[in-house]
Amino acid sequence: MRFSPLIEQLIESFRVLPGVGPKTAQRMAMHLLEREREGGKRLSEVIAQAIDEVGYCQRCRTLTEAPVCALCESARRDDSLLCVVESPADQLAIEEAGGFQGRYFVLHGHLSPLDGVGPEAIGLDLLEERVGEGAIKEVVLATNPTVEGEATAHYIASQLARHGVAFSRLAYGVPMGGELEYVDGGTLSRAFNGRLPFGLE
Amino acid sequence: MRFSPLIEQLIESFRVLPGVGPKTAQRMAMHLLEREREGGKRLSEVIAQAIDEVGYCQRCRTLTEAPVCALCESARRDDSLLCVVESPADQLAIEEAGGFQGRYFVLHGHLSPLDGVGPEAIGLDLLEERVGEGAIKEVVLATNPTVEGEATAHYIASQLARHGVAFSRLAYGVPMGGELEYVDGGTLSRAFNGRLPFGLE
Repeated sequence: MRFSPLIEQLIESFRVLPGVGPKTAQRMAMHLLEREREGGKRLSEVIAQAIDEVGYCQRCRTLTEAPVCALCESARRDDSLLCVVESPADQLAIEEAGGFQGRYFVLHGHLSPLDGVGPEAIGLDLLEERVGEGAIKEVVLATNPTVEGEATAHYIASQLARHGVAFSRLAYGVPMGGELEYVDGGTLSRAFNGRLPFGLE
Repeated sequence: MRFSPLIEQLIESFRVLPGVGPKTAQRMAMHLLEREREGGKRLSEVIAQAIDEVGYCQRCRTLTEAPVCALCESARRDDSLLCVVESPADQLAIEEAGGFQGRYFVLHGHLSPLDGVGPEAIGLDLLEERVGEGAIKEVVLATNPTVEGEATAHYIASQLARHGVAFSRLAYGVPMGGELEYVDGGTLSRAFNGRLPFGLE
């Protein structure tokens, strides 16, 4: 015996969510049916509406239900700085860290020729158009510090080189609050090579 | 800056699911919007359908979209044994363990007068009616081995006493494959008091 067919379908459907295995999916289905029918109904409606209405910002390609996102609309950002990120979650992390006042461009992934992800799939035509407008002076290539992220950053820099903008990349080094013992060798040697003068002022 | 209003709503809505905090909810929303729109659409539809159609089995009160569940419909179960459980998940666990061939009755919780959960809320009128039919000889009170589960088992036994059925409760003891060192004192003393003769045959 298992649950009834519709309940089994519900459990199965929950497995599209990241990190949700069979046990968690069953717990979610039981929780909604036993205790949270109102919340579940609302969840169903909001998922449908979001999937229907949320698309890419026409300017920066971040996820938004508006044609142009609030950050692109804002008059208080520095148009000479553009930060290129792989995902809206990366963009949010940078915004929450504070300090960056420029604009963003979201790739939704990185170049991956073997998976058929080429320059158009990550919006590089739109990015080149944007840089071609002439306002941008520096492009911060904030793709992930992974092999794919590095390769994507290199490709973008080479493609946009003729526009005469400056490129930068986030600094590598030891994470704050971490313990050296647990930092991987690659990061540690990068941090050593990039060591900074230190003095008591 | 946060995400757009509709995406924030989506993240918030995921928090009705058990064990889903703000970070996990954000990851789920991003995953659906970035990579799983088809699966998300289907999830939304199945949640709506299940909430709409899944109710209680008229006989045993387990969750099902049918008027009477498959197990109650089955002709191959023993009508003289009735197992009372707190939830459909408990019922499934017992079924998957195998061995029990009787029928079930699902309380959907336990008595909790302080929260306003009285006998009708856990279906005791329907249970009494069922026992009154006369086919049942033994009621296995498989409520949870918690204070509330024990109290509910006692209450049910006292209410149904006049029908002359036998009552039983799952055995207490050390869990199989566990280590005595980590078994709590209450369980250990119950297991000691209930110790069984052991001989080499």
